[in-house]
Amino acid sequence: MSEKTLKHKEVIVIQDILGSNKKIAAEIRSKLEARGILTVNFMSSPGAGKTALLEKIADRLKSGYRMAVIEGDIETERDAERIRAKGVPAWQITTGGACHLEAKMVAKILPELPAGLDFLFIENVGNLVCPAGYELGERLRCVLLSAPEGDDKPKKYPKAFTTSDCLILTKTDLIPYLPYDQEKAKKEALELNPRLKVFVTSAVTGQGLDELVDFFIASLRRPPHA
Amino acid sequence: MSEKTLKHKEVIVIQDILGSNKKIAAEIRSKLEARGILTVNFMSSPGAGKTALLEKIADRLKSGYRMAVIEGDIETERDAERIRAKGVPAWQITTGGACHLEAKMVAKILPELPAGLDFLFIENVGNLVCPAGYELGERLRCVLLSAPEGDDKPKKYPKAFTTSDCLILTKTDLIPYLPYDQEKAKKEALELNPRLKVFVTSAVTGQGLDELVDFFIASLRRPPHA
Repeated sequence: MSEKTLKHKEVIVIQDILGSNKKIAAEIRSKLEARGILTVNFMSSPGAGKTALLEKIADRLKSGYRMAVIEGDIETERDAERIRAKGVPAWQITTGGACHLEAKMVAKILPELPAGLDFLFIENVGNLVCPAGYELGERLRCVLLSAPEGDDKPKKYPKAFTTSDCLILTKTDLIPYLPYDQEKAKKEALELNPRLKVFVTSAVTGQGLDELVDFFIASLRRPPHA
Repeated sequence: MSEKTLKHKEVIVIQDILGSNKKIAAEIRSKLEARGILTVNFMSSPGAGKTALLEKIADRLKSGYRMAVIEGDIETERDAERIRAKGVPAWQITTGGACHLEAKMVAKILPELPAGLDFLFIENVGNLVCPAGYELGERLRCVLLSAPEGDDKPKKYPKAFTTSDCLILTKTDLIPYLPYDQEKAKKEALELNPRLKVFVTSAVTGQGLDELVDFFIASLRRPPHA
């Protein structure tokens, strides 16, 4: 929700929720950094390809690294089951209606994470709006934008782009069949946030996946906040 | 947000917002029905094709009917401009962050609607979660699901499907290039809500658009709640 549309008491409650979330997120971040785990929060619209991307990342990391996944959805265990089928431990959070993950939901899972973990990927609820307001303790935040969604989306949904570290353009294999200008999408996102590191990917053709995984590995070895 | 994840005072505030929204929506519905206007609320993920569908509806209605459009977005006038380019009056609501339209936003526009209107289409903010909780005074609620989003979405985002009257499957022209089972998507949505009237459409090939527009015209002529 936006404070613009709310009454005073509503604003107070929303501020309480966000303040409390930020505090829990900071605790999570500190615990995960102390364990040397790189935590990545994936945000996007429904169907932009978050789970497919995680499946491909799992294939590429399995030989040398240990990863785990937290899946956020309104309902169903489907995404966690897809990740487990890759031999990767996965926890499904079903929010039962909530439109985003909150740090307190992630905090409950921390004690269950296995030792020796290198990466924790968090797949947020499919929603290009609400998740952007809630830190989950991640070091890297990645927004996915799929080609079929259209090149006009960054400025229509700015917060997901202004708060992210990476932009992952997905489903590029579909571009020949779409009225989609990839350069326009990229340019618009970079106008909102020039710090965005951009990856151009397809889970079908494999385009850009090695570069993305190499970037995560390089980020793992870099000390936090360097 | 879901009540499951909230504290008592937060639940009270959310209930206040929803109760007040429902009341304003009922007033809007009553005013629009009295004027003989059929109001349709379109909900979907970002990029599912709501605006493209409205452009095609405008082409088909222009010879015999008067329509207007209310566009909801976080930011930008882009969608309203696309609709105005079709010669259709359009009002852009930019929520400035809010993840859905609320009835009070729609209420402000009612005095500006022209006389003799047959249809009012409301394009909600692109979000498959939050808009489902907010009635806007519509007689018909339509959820769009685009083929590239995937056939597993209805049960992952159930409320948009359980609260709708129509399911409009969009971008069917892309099916040959996708791992997408249209019958599965349809079956899953109908399991959630057997009352859904299903339309299979493509704004590119024109598939299903005449049937959809005929349905809206037939609904216009049917008295409310018949």
